Amino acid sequence: MSDITYTPTMDQITGLCRRRGFIFQSSEIYGGLAGFFDYGPLGSEMKKNIRDAWWNDMVRRRDNVIGVDCSIIANPLVWKASGHVDGFSDPMVDCKESKMRYRADQLYFSKISVDGELIGYVSVLEDDNMQYIAEKAANDLKRKLGKVGKLDEVILADYTKARPDEYDLIPSPATDKPGSLTPPRAFNLMFTTHIGAMTDDSSVAYLRPETAQNIFINFKNILDTSRVRVPFGIAQIGKAFRNEITPRNFIFRSREFEQMEVEFFINEDSWETWYRYWVEERLAWHKNIGLRPELINLEVHSKEKLAHYSKACTDIIFKYPFGWSELEGVAARGNFDLTQHQNASGKSLEFFDESQGRSYLPHVIEPSVGVDRLFLALLCSAYAEDEIDGEKRMVLKLHPRIAPVKMAILPLVKNKPELVAVARKLYDRFNKICNVFYDESGAIGRRYRRMDEIGTPYCLTVDFESLENGTFTLRDRDSTAQTRLTEEHVLARLMENIF
Amino acid sequence: MSDITYTPTMDQITGLCRRRGFIFQSSEIYGGLAGFFDYGPLGSEMKKNIRDAWWNDMVRRRDNVIGVDCSIIANPLVWKASGHVDGFSDPMVDCKESKMRYRADQLYFSKISVDGELIGYVSVLEDDNMQYIAEKAANDLKRKLGKVGKLDEVILADYTKARPDEYDLIPSPATDKPGSLTPPRAFNLMFTTHIGAMTDDSSVAYLRPETAQNIFINFKNILDTSRVRVPFGIAQIGKAFRNEITPRNFIFRSREFEQMEVEFFINEDSWETWYRYWVEERLAWHKNIGLRPELINLEVHSKEKLAHYSKACTDIIFKYPFGWSELEGVAARGNFDLTQHQNASGKSLEFFDESQGRSYLPHVIEPSVGVDRLFLALLCSAYAEDEIDGEKRMVLKLHPRIAPVKMAILPLVKNKPELVAVARKLYDRFNKICNVFYDESGAIGRRYRRMDEIGTPYCLTVDFESLENGTFTLRDRDSTAQTRLTEEHVLARLMENIF
Repeated sequence: MSDITYTPTMDQITGLCRRRGFIFQSSEIYGGLAGFFDYGPLGSEMKKNIRDAWWNDMVRRRDNVIGVDCSIIANPLVWKASGHVDGFSDPMVDCKESKMRYRADQLYFSKISVDGELIGYVSVLEDDNMQYIAEKAANDLKRKLGKVGKLDEVILADYTKARPDEYDLIPSPATDKPGSLTPPRAFNLMFTTHIGAMTDDSSVAYLRPETAQNIFINFKNILDTSRVRVPFGIAQIGKAFRNEITPRNFIFRSREFEQMEVEFFINEDSWETWYRYWVEERLAWHKNIGLRPELINLEVHSKEKLAHYSKACTDIIFKYPFGWSELEGVAARGNFDLTQHQNASGKSLEFFDESQGRSYLPHVIEPSVGVDRLFLALLCSAYAEDEIDGEKRMVLKLHPRIAPVKMAILPLVKNKPELVAVARKLYDRFNKICNVFYDESGAIGRRYRRMDEIGTPYCLTVDFESLENGTFTLRDRDSTAQTRLTEEHVLARLMENIF
Repeated sequence: MSDITYTPTMDQITGLCRRRGFIFQSSEIYGGLAGFFDYGPLGSEMKKNIRDAWWNDMVRRRDNVIGVDCSIIANPLVWKASGHVDGFSDPMVDCKESKMRYRADQLYFSKISVDGELIGYVSVLEDDNMQYIAEKAANDLKRKLGKVGKLDEVILADYTKARPDEYDLIPSPATDKPGSLTPPRAFNLMFTTHIGAMTDDSSVAYLRPETAQNIFINFKNILDTSRVRVPFGIAQIGKAFRNEITPRNFIFRSREFEQMEVEFFINEDSWETWYRYWVEERLAWHKNIGLRPELINLEVHSKEKLAHYSKACTDIIFKYPFGWSELEGVAARGNFDLTQHQNASGKSLEFFDESQGRSYLPHVIEPSVGVDRLFLALLCSAYAEDEIDGEKRMVLKLHPRIAPVKMAILPLVKNKPELVAVARKLYDRFNKICNVFYDESGAIGRRYRRMDEIGTPYCLTVDFESLENGTFTLRDRDSTAQTRLTEEHVLARLMENIF
């Protein structure tokens, strides 16, 4: 009945999010703020469910992983040691005339020549149609200069590939004239602030651009106070901030986002085993909480793409409406971070391995996923349209663990006090266990549809038979099948599926 | 048996936090960072339990309260409209010579006179012993100036009370010489940052100093997309930041902290009823999750202390080791915030009340509590020392909902594979439901003590009788009573108490 290959557009996803209160842009009444989002009533529940599912599966249900919850602002020496102060940057280019600023790797240019004779340059901002736009600009240039002959092929490259002698020849996208673009410069992506009353260099601090470093700097504290022994993991969920020049694709690339990361500390000898373990484990987890297998895949980084300290990295990628892109990264980071912090702090971060009778700096495998990206992937994966009894319906096939509302409790009609009283009693019982929704207004079919649209897996209807024999109709969202169950069987069904 | 009136010192609390990994100072290996803290393995679990208990009781179990989860950084116009840009400040004073900066209301001074003749001024930083220190300084001054006679009474006042002609006469605490202190100036407590590539005034943004404003600016979005009607509440849990000049008392006043707030929207006519309702409701909640009644009280703000728009405010105060201080505030804020945002944004934020046939800007009751303060209060309230069989024990009598570990699963001895196998099986079952801890090392009494110290309410021991009849010993932390129960009865006990 249902079309499992349904692929929503980004407009359908953002439309649903806006219409049903999953996500709003931040500060909407003030015109918004690019790269920042607010999760509404359903969105905040769903986001909490994502976090809780991860925390339960990654931390509470494992006896070799423990959690931390650290401050967003840390001593700036942390980010110096980690390499972020010096190296966490995007290449930027300024237009001196318009004062516009662009990411150099998103500004494309091409030489333009006619029958082999160079007549100038064109530039264009990264865009699906940029080849077409550049060719049109090339033709315009040729016409303007009165050149005849055959236009040579327009070959776009990004501005970081420009030679120094070309900077003055490439037109600014803002003015369409050459001469105003600067060479590419590194622009640090960390948000800075100042602590205390002074606002000079001595007080500068950073909003963390990732949650991982908190874990490394607490490694020794945790070894000393917990009874964990290598191999073990430290997990954290929390906000991180990156001053992206061009936030885009809704919540996929925003400036404020949330990460869920494990740093799993191991003996170097076993890195390949643990690396493979975590890639498989995380891939299985994503499928387990409802990502459709055909929308998810692995992408192994080539050796050339790896950071110098990295042994291997695999991305778990997802087919978003705008194309395949990263959902989670599983990286074998060696012991680069612990080494950096040990050197910079002068404190030993070594682990004494009793079985080996020696101390060493553990290596680490890091599975790291964005809560917001996973939220988006789950919505895209769950969004479907099908037909029920000849009528089109929009349904969100979220896993029961993820769905913001677990069950709707519906008296068949609202003008029968006996039905309403029983339904309210059920509501009061089940809301002790999970998020349930009471709804008495409208035809029962319409109430089902409203719940389908927000992904509620179960609807429990109280009807006249309920008053007679204490059974209720439990409707399943995906199959729309209805089963009569007692209250205790409904509870058992919930407990099986929502945790 | 247990001493319910036990009152721990701050050193005992911070010592426990450090020793058992509840809380570390942020960036400890780099010498820390004043006003920032990291929650370790037990702390992060306990903090999550606090958040979950609040969310379940305030949001999921109420059909008139819904949640949001908004960005920490919002459009700066939000903070202009709310009054924070212009008014959220502390008075500061600089020492021009030493470049030190002080909070003016924490810098105290006194005229010094001998037999009625003014001989100079002394200054001292706020301190429990400041009267003594000031008198000593007065005597030193008298001796230095070779004055004889009776020193007049030293009457300290804070620097905000100094007259303009006194600024040049009061010595700087840094140099002990007058002439270098500036007049008090307003210092805004919001952390600032810059969004995008520019770092000029046009790009300035603030880290939110409270979570409440996110709720007000989303009021209309939520009315439009949810089916809530006044009276109803919008709840949020999240980080907030205040650039305190003098963070102190551990996690009580830190620069990065977490709030749990409800804005409960009402018709103005009913404000007193709802105000009283929320004061009672919140007071009962704190007692319900384990704060000892004798350590908690109400403090009603006098009319003079209220902000001009505020109708009433009651603090729920707690007796911390450093004295009675605020835990939660319940404020009747009128409709000041909605009015400000309606005026500044030009968007109507009115609610159309069908029952009254008219539109109005709702008033609001705001119960607002700090997660970190509540964490501290819960630890202080739970910390106890008593005697078991003539042996002193330290026990943390946390409510089962709050305790970081709900149950320890302990095979009586570790060298009996049958016992270990059964215990591991129990561990695998119960960790699906909550955070349980498996421990096989050491004498059973020592294992109990370790669990007492971190507040684990139940210990389940697998012994030889367990192999025979499938019952286990469930030990209660507070009474230390032991009961034999089947697995299903243990589950039932857990389910009754931990949610």
